[in-house]
Amino acid sequence: MRIYADNAATTKMSRAAIDAMLPYFEEIYGNPSSLYSIGQTAKEALEEARKTVAGAIGAAPAEIIFTSGGSEADNQALISAAALGKKAGKTHIISDKIEHHAVLHTLRRLEKEGFEVTLLDVGEDGIVDPADVENAIREDTCLVTIMYANNEIGTVQPIRRIGEICRKHGVKFHTDAVQAVGHLPIDVNADNVDLLSGSAHKFHGPKGVGFLYAKKGIRLTNLIDGGAQERGKRAGTENVAGVVGMAAALREAVDRMPENTAKLTALRDRLIEGLSQIPHCALNGDRENRLPSNVSFCFEGIEGESLLLCLDDKGISASSGSACTSGSLDPSHVLLAIGRVHDVAHGSLRLTLGEDADEAQVDYIIAAVKDVVEYLRGFSPVWRDLCAGKSRFIL
Amino acid sequence: MRIYADNAATTKMSRAAIDAMLPYFEEIYGNPSSLYSIGQTAKEALEEARKTVAGAIGAAPAEIIFTSGGSEADNQALISAAALGKKAGKTHIISDKIEHHAVLHTLRRLEKEGFEVTLLDVGEDGIVDPADVENAIREDTCLVTIMYANNEIGTVQPIRRIGEICRKHGVKFHTDAVQAVGHLPIDVNADNVDLLSGSAHKFHGPKGVGFLYAKKGIRLTNLIDGGAQERGKRAGTENVAGVVGMAAALREAVDRMPENTAKLTALRDRLIEGLSQIPHCALNGDRENRLPSNVSFCFEGIEGESLLLCLDDKGISASSGSACTSGSLDPSHVLLAIGRVHDVAHGSLRLTLGEDADEAQVDYIIAAVKDVVEYLRGFSPVWRDLCAGKSRFIL
Repeated sequence: MRIYADNAATTKMSRAAIDAMLPYFEEIYGNPSSLYSIGQTAKEALEEARKTVAGAIGAAPAEIIFTSGGSEADNQALISAAALGKKAGKTHIISDKIEHHAVLHTLRRLEKEGFEVTLLDVGEDGIVDPADVENAIREDTCLVTIMYANNEIGTVQPIRRIGEICRKHGVKFHTDAVQAVGHLPIDVNADNVDLLSGSAHKFHGPKGVGFLYAKKGIRLTNLIDGGAQERGKRAGTENVAGVVGMAAALREAVDRMPENTAKLTALRDRLIEGLSQIPHCALNGDRENRLPSNVSFCFEGIEGESLLLCLDDKGISASSGSACTSGSLDPSHVLLAIGRVHDVAHGSLRLTLGEDADEAQVDYIIAAVKDVVEYLRGFSPVWRDLCAGKSRFIL
Repeated sequence: MRIYADNAATTKMSRAAIDAMLPYFEEIYGNPSSLYSIGQTAKEALEEARKTVAGAIGAAPAEIIFTSGGSEADNQALISAAALGKKAGKTHIISDKIEHHAVLHTLRRLEKEGFEVTLLDVGEDGIVDPADVENAIREDTCLVTIMYANNEIGTVQPIRRIGEICRKHGVKFHTDAVQAVGHLPIDVNADNVDLLSGSAHKFHGPKGVGFLYAKKGIRLTNLIDGGAQERGKRAGTENVAGVVGMAAALREAVDRMPENTAKLTALRDRLIEGLSQIPHCALNGDRENRLPSNVSFCFEGIEGESLLLCLDDKGISASSGSACTSGSLDPSHVLLAIGRVHDVAHGSLRLTLGEDADEAQVDYIIAAVKDVVEYLRGFSPVWRDLCAGKSRFIL
């Protein structure tokens, strides 16, 4: 059995997305900036896709610009809000400790440029307390940036309440919704969101394309200067096929969201229940407020990387946390932030199910993880020390 | 007959590029940062593509980073060289007046940040005189950026000589080679180039992907912060399919370059000769040092936009200049820089042939342009004034 259980890292493209893209490679390959017919047809496709993407999050088409992905959108959102803040003499930004590196590293850059950044703690469940956001807001706060749902532990944040607080205080609110778009119902107006980032390859669209929503009236700062594409806010010939593929994937994801959510939630809960039987393990993230596909555990006494390699041998593709930081020996900043100690954080496993998963696959995963954890613990010195009482079990 | 003669704006994807991409949508869709097999296979494909792209310009694979296109590569190249310059107390940059907006607008941004920019004039042939570059170099010059070949008038610059001068003076040299990669033989070492930008969709690869070559030892500044992709210099999940498609297209372009160049040069010269018969017209750009596919003319007494629309009616896709600035009423900065007056610059036509062009197509274009120019001049008040001696013919 071959099971891809790393859908938070990236997804297999949907047939609808691929079929939507193909004509734009060979037939309607014109440059959308061109006056002649195949250019104009490409332009129309781009604008049709813009409507679809906008509609999926309750935005207006003119509020969407297409980017090369979620990281670019996050960077541009933060840099734009910071520039607007600076102009108004406001240089304080609020975020939290479990954001994606596209947000955290951009904030670090802004700190070097003179901005002050408050990174809020999260609870053991990984949730940002809206009261903490409100308490952190100052006269000079120009931006709050809190992700919609966490990529590692799947925690869904109380975005609407945080949005209300930001609106009440007149502070711009950005949310990195890369893990949420196409998976959770989003309404930027009801959620009081000013800026939102999305990425196509997280919802069965192509890699290398994403979007940034910026509420009407918010002036964006360019990351890429040059031609007048995307209303002058993002230069470069538009990735027409990619954008069309993203829209097709998103349309399908939104249409199927109710049934996918119901199905995935049941499978996720079955998986959580099964894995919880393994001794000395703990679920990461909130039990209820979590993405329908996300299961994240720490197992004491093992190394996450060995676990992944053994699972790969058994046909299961999984991850220890974010794909973007794999290869790094540091434990996940997200797991540390929810209170896991270093050793425990190293023994993490993230399983993110796809819509094609079923109970048989889930049961296979449960059995495989049980086997592998037991196997690895069998020759883990840490585990032997724990069992010999030389150190204390935490989980 | 339907003839696409705007290959400088964008190209139809090659079959080889499409075929190379498809497996990465549905089969090898893993995230290259993942440890499991389909992630690692994607990673290998990425590195294989890096070798191909590097090989096509005489670079080492580690000197290539993948970007979302030529504009991003231009932006990152200039911003990186500027940052290095600033660190060394050097804040003067040399460029020229006919660069692409991705370069010119980035330079404008750098000026706002305190850099001083010298924009060299070009000759009537559109060529940058290497002696002018040398004369402009100062103690505080950190960067020379001169495009390899111009996107509007096709002029190929004396890159190797400019590179030699930069090397002699210890100044970094960037070239926007978006129009040259896959069309002209490039060797970054022989050309003495430190930074070079390329874009896949200009050589029958996909839109939304490009690359930046940075000579070993040149520290790049990130435009996009976040994950550790591209050796930490360009965050965001890699566009694996796009990169693989770019490499396949480039391999084919390089393999076929000798035959394509010979064929296109002959067709280009036939087209230039045919169009030169039209009264009161002038070829833009150098007669010899020009891209094999590029034909650019100004016709007195007409509007380029009307010309394009009439040609589209006759099945010919062409452009008046850069695709990136169409929709703008300003005449091309390139045509103004080579000495065309406003009215004449407005009557411009760029025809850029594809490798599938033939003599019959060229002859059809010649006849169509002759017809349309005559037709448009028939009811042009400017043309009537010219003919009535109320103003002077310039061309």
